[in-house]
Amino acid sequence: MRLRKVKGAEETLKKHNEIVIMEEDLENNSWEEIFKNTNEIHVEIGMGKGDFIIECAKKNPEINFIGIERFDSVAVRALEKVLQNGSDLPNLRIFKVDATNIKAFFKESQVNVIYLNFSDPWPKVRHAKRRLTHQLFLDQYKYILKSDGEIHQKTDNQKLFEYSLESYSHANMKLKNLTLDLHNSDYEIPPMTEFEKKFVEKGMRIYRTEVTV
Amino acid sequence: MRLRKVKGAEETLKKHNEIVIMEEDLENNSWEEIFKNTNEIHVEIGMGKGDFIIECAKKNPEINFIGIERFDSVAVRALEKVLQNGSDLPNLRIFKVDATNIKAFFKESQVNVIYLNFSDPWPKVRHAKRRLTHQLFLDQYKYILKSDGEIHQKTDNQKLFEYSLESYSHANMKLKNLTLDLHNSDYEIPPMTEFEKKFVEKGMRIYRTEVTV
Repeated sequence: MRLRKVKGAEETLKKHNEIVIMEEDLENNSWEEIFKNTNEIHVEIGMGKGDFIIECAKKNPEINFIGIERFDSVAVRALEKVLQNGSDLPNLRIFKVDATNIKAFFKESQVNVIYLNFSDPWPKVRHAKRRLTHQLFLDQYKYILKSDGEIHQKTDNQKLFEYSLESYSHANMKLKNLTLDLHNSDYEIPPMTEFEKKFVEKGMRIYRTEVTV
Repeated sequence: MRLRKVKGAEETLKKHNEIVIMEEDLENNSWEEIFKNTNEIHVEIGMGKGDFIIECAKKNPEINFIGIERFDSVAVRALEKVLQNGSDLPNLRIFKVDATNIKAFFKESQVNVIYLNFSDPWPKVRHAKRRLTHQLFLDQYKYILKSDGEIHQKTDNQKLFEYSLESYSHANMKLKNLTLDLHNSDYEIPPMTEFEKKFVEKGMRIYRTEVTV
């Protein structure tokens, strides 16, 4: 499910370099310099229109949030929502990049939490390497996460969740607070994504787990 | 869900010592001596009325099957079903014992597969130690299983399955062939237990995973 192409998206993103970070911006600036502090860093891979991470950033001003999004047309919608909050979100950045080589954009043990929300399931076996819980990604997450860092994943996609659980176990990662039906569980409900709100209305199950590395 | 007490169950079980093994029988006999061969050993913990393991034993005459059941009244129902098969099941034994110290009944690396089918979920936290996927059990399974041994678990109980997945990961066990809806999956359906047949008729989900140690 992708947005149609938004005209002038690239220009709009580049104009707002106080919020939108491009790969080349990291050549001369560290994340500490960008945020002007050394607070915890939480990264959402595939931020979509940003509902989840914007709510996280509002609730936790002492944590720095980075929302990765590779599509201009999606990132620009997230940007609009961030701009609606005026200057209230100094702890949030949109990082307009492809996450395939995510290890290149962070230092070792720099990140506290990685969020994977409703990631593309890439159902075909020949596309398995693109799944954000493939070993190729988990190895990179291990590198950029602190030793007590965590991955928080939620999805409505049963097959992606099955695959991810197997994948975590083969990477020697540990599962905790796992639920096979988040919205009918005793767990506190974390901020919802825009997809999630629709799924929950339809009564669909949301699978969620936290993973330690 | 437990059977009512069956009158004379204990006597019936003791009379059929060609099929029913008691703890004391292991003092002077090894499993090799009992089966009179050195074939693979598969163990079901909590065999119930035996539908699953009897079907397994019929389909795989070259594998020795041991069904553990601690309740006389349940074991005697399984015995009746085994007896209906006449002398066709030389590769199956009912082991009338409590599995709490299962390690005591097998040699190190003696078992190829352990089946956990619809185990009691013991939902109260103070009973967690009784769950068959508690670390106290997993440590024992590791000891009695061969290095390429496996645990095969299925259950309709969502909370037990969530707990078990976390428990396996903390024991460094690896998940494979995991499905969150066995009867709507592409997997071949293994023999069904008597509970399972009822659950599937009601359209309930069956969770299943294989685990390597």
